[in-house]
Amino acid sequence: MREWLDGAVEALRTREAYSPFVESPSRRRHPEGAHERGKAAFEARCGRHLDVGTPGTLTLGAEVSPFTAEPLGVTYTAPDIDALFERIHAAWPGWRARSPEERVDLSLRILGAWADQCFENAYATMHTTGQAFMLAFAGSGASSLDRGLEALAAAWTAMDSMPRSASYTRRFGRHEATLDKRYRLRPVGVAVVFACGSYPAWNLYPALLANLATGNPVVVKPHPDTILPVALAVQAARRVLAEAGCDPNVLTLAPDTWSAPIGEHLLAHTATRIVDFTGGQRFGAHLERRWAHLQVYTETAGCNAVVLEGADDLEDALGAIAHGLSLFSAQMCTAPQNLWIPPHVRDGEHLVPRDEVVERLVAAVDAHLADPSHAAAICGALHSPATLEAMSALRGADLIREGTPYAHPEFPRARTATPLIRRLTAEVRALAQREHFGPMSFVIEAESPAAALLGAADDARRHGAIASYAYVSPDRVAATEAAFWDAGASVGINLVRQRPMNFTAAFSDYHVTGLNPAGTACLTDPAFVARRFRVVQSKVERTIG
Amino acid sequence: MREWLDGAVEALRTREAYSPFVESPSRRRHPEGAHERGKAAFEARCGRHLDVGTPGTLTLGAEVSPFTAEPLGVTYTAPDIDALFERIHAAWPGWRARSPEERVDLSLRILGAWADQCFENAYATMHTTGQAFMLAFAGSGASSLDRGLEALAAAWTAMDSMPRSASYTRRFGRHEATLDKRYRLRPVGVAVVFACGSYPAWNLYPALLANLATGNPVVVKPHPDTILPVALAVQAARRVLAEAGCDPNVLTLAPDTWSAPIGEHLLAHTATRIVDFTGGQRFGAHLERRWAHLQVYTETAGCNAVVLEGADDLEDALGAIAHGLSLFSAQMCTAPQNLWIPPHVRDGEHLVPRDEVVERLVAAVDAHLADPSHAAAICGALHSPATLEAMSALRGADLIREGTPYAHPEFPRARTATPLIRRLTAEVRALAQREHFGPMSFVIEAESPAAALLGAADDARRHGAIASYAYVSPDRVAATEAAFWDAGASVGINLVRQRPMNFTAAFSDYHVTGLNPAGTACLTDPAFVARRFRVVQSKVERTIG
Repeated sequence: MREWLDGAVEALRTREAYSPFVESPSRRRHPEGAHERGKAAFEARCGRHLDVGTPGTLTLGAEVSPFTAEPLGVTYTAPDIDALFERIHAAWPGWRARSPEERVDLSLRILGAWADQCFENAYATMHTTGQAFMLAFAGSGASSLDRGLEALAAAWTAMDSMPRSASYTRRFGRHEATLDKRYRLRPVGVAVVFACGSYPAWNLYPALLANLATGNPVVVKPHPDTILPVALAVQAARRVLAEAGCDPNVLTLAPDTWSAPIGEHLLAHTATRIVDFTGGQRFGAHLERRWAHLQVYTETAGCNAVVLEGADDLEDALGAIAHGLSLFSAQMCTAPQNLWIPPHVRDGEHLVPRDEVVERLVAAVDAHLADPSHAAAICGALHSPATLEAMSALRGADLIREGTPYAHPEFPRARTATPLIRRLTAEVRALAQREHFGPMSFVIEAESPAAALLGAADDARRHGAIASYAYVSPDRVAATEAAFWDAGASVGINLVRQRPMNFTAAFSDYHVTGLNPAGTACLTDPAFVARRFRVVQSKVERTIG
Repeated sequence: MREWLDGAVEALRTREAYSPFVESPSRRRHPEGAHERGKAAFEARCGRHLDVGTPGTLTLGAEVSPFTAEPLGVTYTAPDIDALFERIHAAWPGWRARSPEERVDLSLRILGAWADQCFENAYATMHTTGQAFMLAFAGSGASSLDRGLEALAAAWTAMDSMPRSASYTRRFGRHEATLDKRYRLRPVGVAVVFACGSYPAWNLYPALLANLATGNPVVVKPHPDTILPVALAVQAARRVLAEAGCDPNVLTLAPDTWSAPIGEHLLAHTATRIVDFTGGQRFGAHLERRWAHLQVYTETAGCNAVVLEGADDLEDALGAIAHGLSLFSAQMCTAPQNLWIPPHVRDGEHLVPRDEVVERLVAAVDAHLADPSHAAAICGALHSPATLEAMSALRGADLIREGTPYAHPEFPRARTATPLIRRLTAEVRALAQREHFGPMSFVIEAESPAAALLGAADDARRHGAIASYAYVSPDRVAATEAAFWDAGASVGINLVRQRPMNFTAAFSDYHVTGLNPAGTACLTDPAFVARRFRVVQSKVERTIG
């Protein structure tokens, strides 16, 4: 597995395409029967208690599949927080005494264990998040394993840049002194990692491994609706640790319920120094303020924009946008939401009036999702019933496209929707200045291409953006970059052949800038790893022999 | 100057001895007349207004030389904060538009300008801080220039590790897409740098350059008693910027007075994102809490310990300690304070009773400072009259050595003192669990060598330590390291030939760990620089030709 690390370190340097993991569940790419065994393993979990070593006497667990509408029936131990931290304190000294090399090596083995578990975890992800199977396989598989390896490689690069010892010789006046110096990297404290409900592995894997590799104990706090895939990952990782002779309590699971959230109790513990959070902007912003004396790494949300000035083939662009609005019912932090459209949009040599552009966009969405089995593969299911309520609240006079459900061919009780699109004038766009989580988007009528760019960039600056998109002529690329960059946002331009448009590549794309309200943490820049460890040293005067 | 950077980057990797700057004011090492010209330049500053481009209509300035007891008579413009930030906002876009290479190159030129100014600044430092001339020459010269170059090299290494562009090719299903990716490093916001009163350049230079190089505007807030050397440095740097065609307001000076402090008004500005602070622990801890939503880099103070178990030649060890207690009247953050002494201390083959050890230490201090001109060169003057009051408060029954003044041969009105030493039993050591700024130290009577080590390490953990020291046998080195490392502290062991014991080497010693209450910022680990910039990017689908 060392070659994974070497490849990742090199990829971080070049930022070219890299992944050692298998993104496709295709039978040709996996051992015979792997898929069936994984599915069976998932099914065997249902209706039983899952022991992940959490200390406590009470149980919890109320996950319901967005596809079957049936409870999974898995229960977990509700943590006794004092007992949990006692175990962490007992486990920590042994973990931090291991060298960075040993911890990185074990982190690689954890990645391997997660990769081995990818079919089982894909089903667990599917039936908790609502992701369609193919997306869940990639989403809790290669996409997140890549991000985990990326963070691990970044942590390793930072740690490896610092020597373990030095011989220091200098003359002070008449005296020449030689000091033998030793440097040791030290972790900073307990890290609490909040996993998100709709895409649980994406930040869990990098945060977990960045913390473990640098020596910090990790408590994982899953979203109450999406515990199983997180619990499976923690269980697999603890097994790796135990098999290597480590106390596995350096990594623990602390699940909770909607009615009795424990996240901030974990943060309030005196041993906690780090919080990694992915989820909604409101709670994320609260964490950033309330727990600012900790290291707070957040990835939350913004109002992602598409600036549609024109394209050589507008149909290609509209197809890409239609796909972005549909993929996993836009329950991805990179999904487009605000579609800024000037009065006319270039289509090759022609200018198309906005109304016609909007009609063609709706037609593109309709065509994309006309086949229910295709719609099922793309849209999956809605993670939360609250999303249906949010969609209802948006219905009204300005609706461009109803977010009607599609009929899932395999799961008739699945909670489904197709993209709802509403029209807003630029003047009343406050509604669009926050994330609407789910398949809800807005056509914002801009008075000019320049106004569209300015409005989208200004929203990113003030309200946050994780991903922004633009379709512009080559001579407008530089201005588009400048506008978003000045807003502290990144931008994808003319993305059509790269489907889906909101694909974000580990090792190549920096995910979240940390410069706008959509989060403080970037996967993976040097700032994501550099503060998770510090240096203690000694210098010993060499005895003259 | 590029070779300075290359040397620094390499030294950070090896952590061996490195400095491109001249530490000694010896005539042989400098152009003829440089010393005289520098002294004359300093004298010409006195009694005049110094214009550093600060906008405002009022003036301030009440610096008094600790050597002559005379006011310097230099006045400065009191900043109009709104006007100051307006100028900063006007200057920032041009600065951040420059490439990291250009900003690093200009930072190197700033280091060069500071080096050229070292005699003038040494006198300015001497007559504001109380440092003796030799110390001031090194302290605001090579020692701080090295730290500045070190931080610059670290910032450059972090920025240089990230490519500016990449070509990304990947197959998505049947489609192969190539994306041209561009990455730009972006600063985070205005940095307010608090310089400290007794050693102003030591953290000013690294913080200032780390911020400027990464693109952040810097407002320097000097200590009200030590404005001149800071103002000279800011003025010289602004001249470099202006000569290079930059708007110099990317670096500004904001002096204040004891009666109307402005530091927190600067922090409260919406554009401020970073605070770098060196100074007292109380205000530092306040900044860490109150402004935790900013990036807060502090270097404050702790209760630095010496664990004295024994030495092959105890006289050597006591001599080193006596020097550490005396150097700049212990007004250094690395000065030893708490002398942990067990009932017997090994001296070669013999065990010496504690009382005799203490007698010999006092004798070593007395001998070290017997010659007033030698005392003047070592002790310098007391920065603040408050230190004399603090010393008075410690006098009493348990006094081991009075901190009597010495007669300065050149400046009869100099505010001087020699080391005051007081005895404490380990049980009543609360008095020693904070920094006593100035020549005040405590002999703490430990019941055993192990108890001495434990007590010293525990104080470091709970109350902070910037530098810890131990004199132990070779077979106790590992245990000594482990005790301090577990407390999040670094330790110098058996330092005798390396005089002074509290010399801290840029490029080799990590100054402050960030793991105990003595500060959050380490000069210079990756965490010191990594968060001062973030990445924005674009990815543009390549048009197929």
